[in-house]
Amino acid sequence: MSADGEGTPADFRVGLLGHGTVGSAFSALLEERAGEIARFNGRRPVICGVLTRTQGNFDEILAEADLLVELIGGIEPAREYLLSAMRAGKDVVSANKQLLSQHGEELFETAREHGVRLRFEAAVAGAVPVVRVLEESLSATPIDRIHGIVNGTTNFILTEMAGGSSYAEALAEAQRSGYAEADPSDDVSGRDAAAKMAILARLAFGTPVHLDDVRYEGIEHLHGDDLEYARELGLGLKLVGTAERRDGGLSVHVHPTFLYAGHPLSSISGSFNAVTVESGTITEITMSGPGAGGLQTASAVLGDVVSVMTGGARPPAPPLPLRLIEDVESAYYLHLDVADRPGVLATVMRVLGEKQVSIRSVVQRGLGENARLVMVTHPVLESSLRVAVEEVGEFDFVRSPPRMIRVIEEEYA
Amino acid sequence: MSADGEGTPADFRVGLLGHGTVGSAFSALLEERAGEIARFNGRRPVICGVLTRTQGNFDEILAEADLLVELIGGIEPAREYLLSAMRAGKDVVSANKQLLSQHGEELFETAREHGVRLRFEAAVAGAVPVVRVLEESLSATPIDRIHGIVNGTTNFILTEMAGGSSYAEALAEAQRSGYAEADPSDDVSGRDAAAKMAILARLAFGTPVHLDDVRYEGIEHLHGDDLEYARELGLGLKLVGTAERRDGGLSVHVHPTFLYAGHPLSSISGSFNAVTVESGTITEITMSGPGAGGLQTASAVLGDVVSVMTGGARPPAPPLPLRLIEDVESAYYLHLDVADRPGVLATVMRVLGEKQVSIRSVVQRGLGENARLVMVTHPVLESSLRVAVEEVGEFDFVRSPPRMIRVIEEEYA
Repeated sequence: MSADGEGTPADFRVGLLGHGTVGSAFSALLEERAGEIARFNGRRPVICGVLTRTQGNFDEILAEADLLVELIGGIEPAREYLLSAMRAGKDVVSANKQLLSQHGEELFETAREHGVRLRFEAAVAGAVPVVRVLEESLSATPIDRIHGIVNGTTNFILTEMAGGSSYAEALAEAQRSGYAEADPSDDVSGRDAAAKMAILARLAFGTPVHLDDVRYEGIEHLHGDDLEYARELGLGLKLVGTAERRDGGLSVHVHPTFLYAGHPLSSISGSFNAVTVESGTITEITMSGPGAGGLQTASAVLGDVVSVMTGGARPPAPPLPLRLIEDVESAYYLHLDVADRPGVLATVMRVLGEKQVSIRSVVQRGLGENARLVMVTHPVLESSLRVAVEEVGEFDFVRSPPRMIRVIEEEYA
Repeated sequence: MSADGEGTPADFRVGLLGHGTVGSAFSALLEERAGEIARFNGRRPVICGVLTRTQGNFDEILAEADLLVELIGGIEPAREYLLSAMRAGKDVVSANKQLLSQHGEELFETAREHGVRLRFEAAVAGAVPVVRVLEESLSATPIDRIHGIVNGTTNFILTEMAGGSSYAEALAEAQRSGYAEADPSDDVSGRDAAAKMAILARLAFGTPVHLDDVRYEGIEHLHGDDLEYARELGLGLKLVGTAERRDGGLSVHVHPTFLYAGHPLSSISGSFNAVTVESGTITEITMSGPGAGGLQTASAVLGDVVSVMTGGARPPAPPLPLRLIEDVESAYYLHLDVADRPGVLATVMRVLGEKQVSIRSVVQRGLGENARLVMVTHPVLESSLRVAVEEVGEFDFVRSPPRMIRVIEEEYA
């Protein structure tokens, strides 16, 4: 590694912005693999400068570098650095999901305008190469739908809860094991997954999707009961992001979701990520692996650097706007705690029926003076179901707020 | 589509060799997607000529084309056509696993020498983009091991057998459903999977591997008993190809294999393919999807065409020979039908012990006058185990030829 800016003509000079966990893993990995990369690319990657809060000068690093790697995170100054680099004709690699999900079009347009490459594999699913596969292998494939488990923290927590832990215990275990931050709200609220789904939706469907366009719901409100119900029926409960064509538009959302046992995402456990791509021409492809971790992310960033050295990769095509649909159509699981007295089930069914919610199965279980109603609906618009459930929740025989969770069952897949 | 060789300057001219199932699916898909491809690549792909046994002239098609797609299959004339095209400076795409697993180095060297691109995603796992991911995303990642289910016919048959069918019934069903040829020997013998593992091993480890270097064993000799045993223990029985670094060398082989339930390949069912890549830096990535089918293969071929248009992809680096290790080290399941009389188990254990085969678990079950011994060994060299099993098989108390099947258990993974 040559940190002083010197190098032989055969060097490929990488300027590094940010030197935290991923940044240091990246420079170590680059140094370790430089010889092997040189063997098949002809040029040897070297770090020509590092910018941190206390060290380095952006303009000097930019002038020296063939390519900039941005591992600062957050919006500013990362955005300004990436735009400056591309305007100066430099290729860039970033792992910044916040930036791409909120300023993606500006970055893509700048890359197109200046004919440079912008790579960001590590922004979505760590070492799982879903960005490259969507951008390249599947760029000629008309995609119908993507389902993704794109947040390792929540998948770890849900895996622990499926094993019997409470939400609080599972979260504490995730924090102890380094899978959750001290403040886990970005992960458990579904916001992190929503940012990644916005990026994937842009790649798969060509339509600009801003983080604010993505409906999301987190896992904080899930009960042990819900997991128990999943276990009984052989269903998995996962935080699933979906981007799908519907009614000539595009729907992108993140929700806790029951999955039937044969679904390719239902066996993804612990902190792993996975993405399933559905299309008439390829049926369904699934990619899975560790979603985060310094070394995995560093490995994805290095893969991007190598792809720029190899000469592949173009910025995403100009946008092809599809109408964004906020509403979600899905089957739902409904959970109601009610007083166990005559006529309750009939009343609930009448209200649901009036709102066009059609019920596929219902189980009523007595619990002393109370009873639990567990229903699975036929596919229904989330908005219609919410109205119906709100009305049901107002009856005095309903003992606690009704709960609804999305279901992907085999027959609807 | 312009089949007469005419086209505007913005056309990207594709010459097509072969027009069978995949060839016709490919030309239809290319025509359907040409507009979308032009939108993000600037050039519009068109078929500028088609060569079949009865139509077209190779030299004329070559002269017209920017790129040749070879979908003839078999060794000759496919090999000669690809070499001629590359020597004429044309990029090529092929789906030909026979050719790549037997003449890969000659093709790669020709591509390097003439600075052209040679893409072959469809030769390994259909629409599952394992070739591109190994060649590009993971090109900077030191890979330890690959496991693959790379033959959809055998996976379909084993899935049927796991549901209770006999081998003959499952094969007949595969033939009825179009998953097996009238002569299925290339698939059920493991030879097709061996060719694909040779190609994957070259990509993952940089070492030339010829089809003849790959040890393989098929599924024809599997019994219902073996599947029943798998079911009882919650194990999957799959035809698994493995390429792994071992003792400073490289071992590539294909065997029926018991997999523990949590293994990423154990849930792959029907005609699907899947490949798991293991590495210290990325832990483990799995890709799965439909392995074959005209449309899926056509889709992978079109993805390769687009990747050439985009300007990415280089031929594999010059070879880095590792010593090829023929022997396989693994845990094994051993199945013996024996006379149920005193001393039999002791004798079997003595012979195995003398040959350094260490037993992890053993179950003996009486069946009238006979008994069944089912053992799982600790990891052992296949060659040592074969010698031991042969010696055991010679005792007169052994009622039928002993059976041994490789096991991947969690603790060895």
